Amino acid sequence: MRDAGCVFCGVVHGDTPADVVLDDDVAVAFLDRSPVFKGHTLVVPRIHVVTLPDLDPALTGPLFERVRRVTAVMPAALDADGTFVAINNVVSQSVAHLHVHVVPRRRKDGLRGFFWPRQKYAAGESAAFAGRIRHLLEAPSK
Amino acid sequence: MRDAGCVFCGVVHGDTPADVVLDDDVAVAFLDRSPVFKGHTLVVPRIHVVTLPDLDPALTGPLFERVRRVTAVMPAALDADGTFVAINNVVSQSVAHLHVHVVPRRRKDGLRGFFWPRQKYAAGESAAFAGRIRHLLEAPSK
Repeated sequence: MRDAGCVFCGVVHGDTPADVVLDDDVAVAFLDRSPVFKGHTLVVPRIHVVTLPDLDPALTGPLFERVRRVTAVMPAALDADGTFVAINNVVSQSVAHLHVHVVPRRRKDGLRGFFWPRQKYAAGESAAFAGRIRHLLEAPSK
Repeated sequence: MRDAGCVFCGVVHGDTPADVVLDDDVAVAFLDRSPVFKGHTLVVPRIHVVTLPDLDPALTGPLFERVRRVTAVMPAALDADGTFVAINNVVSQSVAHLHVHVVPRRRKDGLRGFFWPRQKYAAGESAAFAGRIRHLLEAPSK
């Protein structure tokens, strides 16, 4: 339930100071200390899990309903035009406790959601990639 | 339910070709045509809504349970180390139909989840930002 060395478990249990915006039986939401833009919020499940695949499916809805609520109020709360929601699972994940970033965005704020270089599929290649994902999604245990 | 000019509604209804990896009563998942990395998948609700705040709260759980399943299988399906999950609401949103990006990530793939410049709060400033968000989250209608 709690990981002794986890800084986000410390926030959840009130042992680590944080600017909390939401705290209930499912999740705690608090400000990222090094925001991309001020008001940048992290929504974390109370229970210690590392990544989204590790989350109990029964908690997925309750967690993301809280994420949805944060995205619903953030533009009015911070005079923003929209939001960016993001999760790093394993790679680029700075804290090993699932956290959903909700970042306020404004037009012409100098960022782009996906300014990463894009690739191109060769003819027929995309169908093969889709098949690999679809095959595992359709496996009985998933 | 369907927006006549929406390309993702076209995919949902089978009128626009796509490499589909999941298709059920709640959502359709298919490959992004210009992937950040090959296998980059978009998960969209069947119902046309523009942003996450627009989504019926009753659909939030079912939609993100499907996102969770895609993140669960993607590493094995694509020999990846992890995933990046992202939503652009309004700003940087290229198609006006809610879509959740699930991008395969590998260590040393040259990207970082948050390589954006980070800001710093002045003393006391973060509490004020948190208060503005918390205030609206605690409003009765949200």
